[in-house]
Amino acid sequence: MKKIYCLIYILFTLPLLSQEKEGITHSGQLTGNPPFPIENYSELDNPKSTSETLWNKKNRTFVSWANTDVRYNKEIPAPIALSQETLHLSAWKGEQLNAQLIISAHRKSLELNFEISDLSSSQSKIESKNITGGFVRYVMTDELNKDGKGACGPRNHKEFDSTLVADPIDHLNDRLSIAKNTTRPVWVTINVPRDITKGKYTGEIKIRDGDRILKKLGLEIEVLDRVLPKSENWKFHLDLWQNPYAAARYYRTDLWSDEHFAAMKQDLQHYVNAGGKSITASIMNRPWNGQTYDPFQSMVTWRKTIDNKWSFDFTVFDKWVEFMMDLGVKKQINCYSMVPWRLAFEYFDEASNSMKTIETKPGEKAYSEMWGAMLKAFATHLKKKGWFGKTYISMDERPMDVMLETIKLIKSADKNFKISFAGSFHKELLERIDDYCLALGENYPQEILGKRQNRGKISTFYTSCAHPRPNSFTFSPPAETAWYGWYAAATGLDGYLRWAYASWPLEPLLDSRFSTWAAGDTYLVYPGGRTSIRFQKLLEGIQAYEKIKLLRREFIESGEKEDLKKLDTLLNGFASSEIIEKDVAQSIKKANIQLNSF
Amino acid sequence: MKKIYCLIYILFTLPLLSQEKEGITHSGQLTGNPPFPIENYSELDNPKSTSETLWNKKNRTFVSWANTDVRYNKEIPAPIALSQETLHLSAWKGEQLNAQLIISAHRKSLELNFEISDLSSSQSKIESKNITGGFVRYVMTDELNKDGKGACGPRNHKEFDSTLVADPIDHLNDRLSIAKNTTRPVWVTINVPRDITKGKYTGEIKIRDGDRILKKLGLEIEVLDRVLPKSENWKFHLDLWQNPYAAARYYRTDLWSDEHFAAMKQDLQHYVNAGGKSITASIMNRPWNGQTYDPFQSMVTWRKTIDNKWSFDFTVFDKWVEFMMDLGVKKQINCYSMVPWRLAFEYFDEASNSMKTIETKPGEKAYSEMWGAMLKAFATHLKKKGWFGKTYISMDERPMDVMLETIKLIKSADKNFKISFAGSFHKELLERIDDYCLALGENYPQEILGKRQNRGKISTFYTSCAHPRPNSFTFSPPAETAWYGWYAAATGLDGYLRWAYASWPLEPLLDSRFSTWAAGDTYLVYPGGRTSIRFQKLLEGIQAYEKIKLLRREFIESGEKEDLKKLDTLLNGFASSEIIEKDVAQSIKKANIQLNSF
Repeated sequence: MKKIYCLIYILFTLPLLSQEKEGITHSGQLTGNPPFPIENYSELDNPKSTSETLWNKKNRTFVSWANTDVRYNKEIPAPIALSQETLHLSAWKGEQLNAQLIISAHRKSLELNFEISDLSSSQSKIESKNITGGFVRYVMTDELNKDGKGACGPRNHKEFDSTLVADPIDHLNDRLSIAKNTTRPVWVTINVPRDITKGKYTGEIKIRDGDRILKKLGLEIEVLDRVLPKSENWKFHLDLWQNPYAAARYYRTDLWSDEHFAAMKQDLQHYVNAGGKSITASIMNRPWNGQTYDPFQSMVTWRKTIDNKWSFDFTVFDKWVEFMMDLGVKKQINCYSMVPWRLAFEYFDEASNSMKTIETKPGEKAYSEMWGAMLKAFATHLKKKGWFGKTYISMDERPMDVMLETIKLIKSADKNFKISFAGSFHKELLERIDDYCLALGENYPQEILGKRQNRGKISTFYTSCAHPRPNSFTFSPPAETAWYGWYAAATGLDGYLRWAYASWPLEPLLDSRFSTWAAGDTYLVYPGGRTSIRFQKLLEGIQAYEKIKLLRREFIESGEKEDLKKLDTLLNGFASSEIIEKDVAQSIKKANIQLNSF
Repeated sequence: MKKIYCLIYILFTLPLLSQEKEGITHSGQLTGNPPFPIENYSELDNPKSTSETLWNKKNRTFVSWANTDVRYNKEIPAPIALSQETLHLSAWKGEQLNAQLIISAHRKSLELNFEISDLSSSQSKIESKNITGGFVRYVMTDELNKDGKGACGPRNHKEFDSTLVADPIDHLNDRLSIAKNTTRPVWVTINVPRDITKGKYTGEIKIRDGDRILKKLGLEIEVLDRVLPKSENWKFHLDLWQNPYAAARYYRTDLWSDEHFAAMKQDLQHYVNAGGKSITASIMNRPWNGQTYDPFQSMVTWRKTIDNKWSFDFTVFDKWVEFMMDLGVKKQINCYSMVPWRLAFEYFDEASNSMKTIETKPGEKAYSEMWGAMLKAFATHLKKKGWFGKTYISMDERPMDVMLETIKLIKSADKNFKISFAGSFHKELLERIDDYCLALGENYPQEILGKRQNRGKISTFYTSCAHPRPNSFTFSPPAETAWYGWYAAATGLDGYLRWAYASWPLEPLLDSRFSTWAAGDTYLVYPGGRTSIRFQKLLEGIQAYEKIKLLRREFIESGEKEDLKKLDTLLNGFASSEIIEKDVAQSIKKANIQLNSF
């Protein structure tokens, strides 16, 4: 009898073991392509139980427009107060709008699908191809540190509440089976064409269970007579660090193969659409050591020849930069890092035909030799490519003497090398840093900010695990990422930086938690070209920033002092980084209405 | 009190720990240069105890000529029977002779040193610069496997008797302090000039304790009227695998630096002097995995470009080959290995800027692709260098189908590529292998051996841990390595191969044991340009082989049938690989006398 059990056990575990080897997730699902389909996947089990009583209060499926500022719970029916059959939005031409509708499956499971019509005005129409619907999916999240003061530090998942949260927007499935007694939102994005006439456009969305119509929801968009330019012309300096190494691992493609680039394209398109400005390039191995599930490798080949000379190859760097530029990210290339988190530099050693590592730091001879050689070769190469003027040697915070040593070395290699820096405010660095990014909560002196802008120097802010709010964890209130654009506009900053655009953990579609920091810290978009509630709200804020910039210039040029004053007053509420969680969504909603009333 | 002990302990162990980090030996001595002097070192403690009674039998220091076939024990006084004041040797012009003298320090320690005079005849002299004396040093050894049938397999030193054995010949010190009640041999090599007149040359060696002469030993050499050519013109195909990686580690030099080459030069000179024919080149990483303390790395840079193409660089290979050729090893380059012990091939991956490994085997597509590309690039490069005709793609034994697949691939890359093989006798391979080496005990069919020689194909034999005797372990009777030359001459073989010339263990001067196989298996010469009893006797045998070759040709050309018959009879005793340990030295001694009587 024991033998039979043993055999059953072996037969049962063998496929699991072999899948493990294939890089399977903790849930047993392989969501990465190829060769497994990425379209369909099952969400992880809901750790929260479902209250039958709650669900039994209604007899039939509930469908309504909902609030884009809310992450609706999967196990809770849509709030009774919610019952909106038509959604009224207003927009500039060229703007992308967000909308959310919600379906709660009382009493029976559903084969959900929907159909979006054209939106018509008396004179024209917004074709349905400009409107995308995607099921909002549930992903595992956790919470802030127990003291509520931040989300930094390594995590043992057992010590944090883990729940499912609505965040990924899954546009790949036009049909989704949902279980009885669950809620499922649908996210709708409307790309208002730029060349359309102003006016009221109306249409509808049919929500179906299989072939049966559950509800028709009306959609009405007031298109205003103002135009938002293409994202490539936006002013907001958006710098979200890309991680091609995560994509290669997740999609199981060879690094820099055609398949790799093809897979990344759809994911990076959201960054392009949001006006992404910086290409993230790793010019040495592991600039941030192992802080991401997939460490950044070097895009530059460091080679020590048998004659003990440094030699460099930029083939990978070029291929990556060219790919990003072709996608539309063209403003600058930020190169990490001369001051990596671990001061260890790996290179290919020709003598031993193996990788070797030098531990050295700025100010030391070995450091100056290797980086001096690299920067000179790099400058020559960049000039040949015509990229020198847009390339920034990028630094993370280090002790001041170390940073000054590094800057000295950069400038001695080529005095025109640009430098970017993310960290605290240091008066000594202001003149030296071309692209300066402060942690949210630290402020540039206002007079300096203006001077920097006049000289073409960029000044931005960032959020990280140190900020409990606003932030973009998967559990953060959606409006908090929209707030970034308003804050930048109110304080005169040029934009926003975040250290991880898509540094995915093991299975980003299923579980946004990571071994350090709160869930979602390491990425904003999901595989398969899926955007997220967080990212869509970030885009909303950036669009508001662009509108504000345009309006301000218009008011100044036309001498509309009254409007200028109104605009300033409107922004006053966003000038402090000390936000009150419950007020953010409401303030932004109000401000948006005002912005669209100019 | 406890605290003080603890402090003492820490103070005592700290320097040990830091030395450990520096790569110190188990004995606490650093014998590798630089920066530590290699001239002076202390032998490991003698595991055998000294019998005072035995030593007290004599009152004073004993000095005598001794037998080169004996490894005299350190803890035992020279045999009473030994008492030879003058040594009589005979030699061909150009020959290198070995002699050994012994000093036993009864009653008191000694500051040993010696002075060698010129050797004079009535007409001419052999200047003392042609005569080198070196103290024979004691190194730790072990023994055969307990069944006496071989010496293969991993070893736990505790399971084997470990003793000190006389083997390294230390010519670097002209003075050595030896303790009371110890024996110390001195090895003397005489390079008989090639341009000297025949005749009897006499001289002496003064053995001193400090400034006090202990003994004058007479040396008399009968120089015959025959000439042994320079070693570069010797016919014996000697193939001892060099390991430059061991030298770089031991001498703590950068690989392929000037210091590295300078350090290797003196060690490899013995191989050149013995007529070494083959340059050992590793064309991939770890051809024999980790069978040596210092694994062989790749002398060829294997690189996979971002476009998924193979690219090769031969800079290291060229530098090594040119160095060896400059030293005088010019006949062939043996390249290891297309069939390494672990079928895993490492390369630099441009995409990830890291080393990657492919596991593949002959017959597979990946294997054909990588090796096909490599062999074609290699052939082109070798032709440009003018080395193609002397380069051999070298294999170790694998299953026949695998070897035939490999050969097919080699020939498809270039049909004129030469191939070498070490392993068992396979009829199928005979035609295909240009340099074939059989394990001692296996035989080539006699008619085939002749045919191979006529076609310029090489046929040799090797010994390994599988051979209890003859062999070249540090405990092997010295005559066994001399026997190789006689055996080759008797069986019509072209020469001898051994897999390790100087694949040194951690501290080769102190301890010849290794983690696998019997002690001394991994090397024949010692650091600092030191030769060994084993190596000197190997050279004796090779010289005998050369003499036999010359005499045979002379007898054939001059029709001296009687002498030819005498020569053949002389060799009959060496035609079987089944040797009787106690007879080897005596047989060779007799045969040498006969050889010098022609």
